[in-house]
Amino acid sequence: MFDIQEIRSQFSILNRKVNGKPLVYLDNAATSQKPDSVLKVWDAYYKELNANVHRGIHTLSQLATEEMELSRRKIQKFINAKYDFEVIFTKGTTEGLNLISYILTRKLKKDDEIIISYLEHHSNIVPWQLLCERTGARLKVIPMDENGVLQMDVFDTLLNERTKIVSMNQVSNALGVINPVEEIIAKTRKNTDAYIVIDGAQSVPHFTIDVQAMDCDFFVFSGHKMYAPMGTGILYGKQEILEELPPFHGGGEMIATCSFEETTYAGLPFKYEAGTPNVGGNIALGAAVDFILETGHENIRTHENALLEYAQRQLLEIEGLKVYGEKANRTGVVSFNLEGIGIASDVGMILDKLGIAVRTGHHCTQPIMNFFNIAGTVRASFAVYNTFNEIDVLVEGVKKAQKMLG
Amino acid sequence: MFDIQEIRSQFSILNRKVNGKPLVYLDNAATSQKPDSVLKVWDAYYKELNANVHRGIHTLSQLATEEMELSRRKIQKFINAKYDFEVIFTKGTTEGLNLISYILTRKLKKDDEIIISYLEHHSNIVPWQLLCERTGARLKVIPMDENGVLQMDVFDTLLNERTKIVSMNQVSNALGVINPVEEIIAKTRKNTDAYIVIDGAQSVPHFTIDVQAMDCDFFVFSGHKMYAPMGTGILYGKQEILEELPPFHGGGEMIATCSFEETTYAGLPFKYEAGTPNVGGNIALGAAVDFILETGHENIRTHENALLEYAQRQLLEIEGLKVYGEKANRTGVVSFNLEGIGIASDVGMILDKLGIAVRTGHHCTQPIMNFFNIAGTVRASFAVYNTFNEIDVLVEGVKKAQKMLG
Repeated sequence: MFDIQEIRSQFSILNRKVNGKPLVYLDNAATSQKPDSVLKVWDAYYKELNANVHRGIHTLSQLATEEMELSRRKIQKFINAKYDFEVIFTKGTTEGLNLISYILTRKLKKDDEIIISYLEHHSNIVPWQLLCERTGARLKVIPMDENGVLQMDVFDTLLNERTKIVSMNQVSNALGVINPVEEIIAKTRKNTDAYIVIDGAQSVPHFTIDVQAMDCDFFVFSGHKMYAPMGTGILYGKQEILEELPPFHGGGEMIATCSFEETTYAGLPFKYEAGTPNVGGNIALGAAVDFILETGHENIRTHENALLEYAQRQLLEIEGLKVYGEKANRTGVVSFNLEGIGIASDVGMILDKLGIAVRTGHHCTQPIMNFFNIAGTVRASFAVYNTFNEIDVLVEGVKKAQKMLG
Repeated sequence: MFDIQEIRSQFSILNRKVNGKPLVYLDNAATSQKPDSVLKVWDAYYKELNANVHRGIHTLSQLATEEMELSRRKIQKFINAKYDFEVIFTKGTTEGLNLISYILTRKLKKDDEIIISYLEHHSNIVPWQLLCERTGARLKVIPMDENGVLQMDVFDTLLNERTKIVSMNQVSNALGVINPVEEIIAKTRKNTDAYIVIDGAQSVPHFTIDVQAMDCDFFVFSGHKMYAPMGTGILYGKQEILEELPPFHGGGEMIATCSFEETTYAGLPFKYEAGTPNVGGNIALGAAVDFILETGHENIRTHENALLEYAQRQLLEIEGLKVYGEKANRTGVVSFNLEGIGIASDVGMILDKLGIAVRTGHHCTQPIMNFFNIAGTVRASFAVYNTFNEIDVLVEGVKKAQKMLG
């Protein structure tokens, strides 16, 4: 049984007030709140077994290592990776994407092509621009239509023998649009030898992920958007690819032997985990996986989709309100503006006075904003603990903002 | 008044037992334990104001941003940086050093030279080897003598117009030797235009740091060795240098404008902080600075030096025990072996049975081990909460190990 009050009771922060009103937290695509169970695991780690991992033979170091490796295996199962050593701990999606863009540097040459979509977050644009600068490769973009849907017929024409990387988010953070990654991967595999990178930052909190079925080469996501602490994240990469590519950071953990003349590198996953890992955070990420599995993937998705549908329907009843990507297949996000109110942040400020946390601005997706010829949107984004009542509060707030600013 | 029992009472983990004995935690150079005050700040962050920073206008986002920027200013004061925007949040020392080595890539050309010391951790060796691979530059090493003291007369001969980077730790993690960074920086400035990088991972927990007086270009350290959570760290860089150098990671936060054709970068510190920062961890790092300042830098150093002196004197009374760097100016670490016992980890395992956590092995400094022609050492390393009684327990344990293994 899905009991929303029971779920909410697991999140202490949801009891707080903002500006004298109960907090209505609808900024989950920026970062989710964390259940007390996750915070407790982190706290217990530091109160009971904190130590540096892998290199110590003393009891605490052994225990800390076991717990962190247990977490790695939880995450392996969570995304259905073939091996636990294909799961690399990072500090978040942005680091994962940058790591990939650096280690692929020598695989690219002048006039090679990298394909991304119009719907990308800056973190899936800028690393590739920097890679193009380093190599002379060129960035190609799959255009989208007025509904935020990728134009797949144009994608077909972009694929060719110069295509070396195809990188894309599974879900757009700005609009919540679900990209057809299965189709994109199938077409890319059929027509090229390109590396396929999927940014799962906005899909992992909502979907069941199966990287083997998806057949991507890399899959990256953040912990902090899926109920885990900030400073955690995962880079999944296929074994044969991670083994062949060069290391990224040099340092402790990632070497086999080191002398001033020659250094050899450790095997996976350590090759890509130089330095002391965020042990407490990585263990807490495992606890966040437990929270999701205990709550139930299906329950989460069903509830969030119902929230989205309800929110969109209610919002669209407001005259002059435009939802971006209204007709697209979406999850987790409704992104909108009010006619005649040029500055989304004005709406956001009024909502904040009512205790409602939404994000306003370009959401680190300036190209999408330029496409719609707007500076930004008001974005409400949902997590499992949101309620229909909160949507009502949001809708009332938007109406109030419209009156005040209109 | 320095009250060791009062200090110990701030660390819950110190109450635990290991193998039925009270924990004697002497692995502080690997990672320190965290006071409850730091854990509490982290927990309160997630229970009261967790949100993504900088990009939100809602109350939680504003509060989280204020707290994180307050922490940045605490750290600025802590290391006496001129401006708060010279303080960049990282995930740790290893990331800091790798970041520097990447952004300096275009400053180096074939046959340029990078000088490091013999006493470096792998994290201050491998990034420079990778940089040499990228550029054709060459790695030069300041040799050390039998006491782990750098041969400064040889350093003089290494400095020349090809010297582009001088990078060095202030304190050796393997031996605790304090490097003469002031002299090294003065000579480097006088004879070259090289960038000067100081690895403060092992000095920040023990010393007062003044980056302006030191006149280094970069200074990096980890949070987790100075009473803060893992996954936190700082890269300090001089304003004019950070402004001139290119970005490292691309993504959110670090751009001013982004289009598929052209991207411009944000100012400091955001240019080097792509992606969602570890907000909770960064705030907790500020709380760790508070802990150090409240305990008193001078108290910490005096106590730790007394522990080191006491430990070394007691240990040297054991026949056949050799302390590496015995006569060098040191802090925080005593690294030793017992004659006739080839495998340091055997000693470590016996100590563990007695509840004593020490590190054994190469400590990510294989060159130092090769110099002494050993596979590893037993390393006991100290923090402010260690006691003279714990040293007695260690010394008795080492004697017992000698009997059992001898």
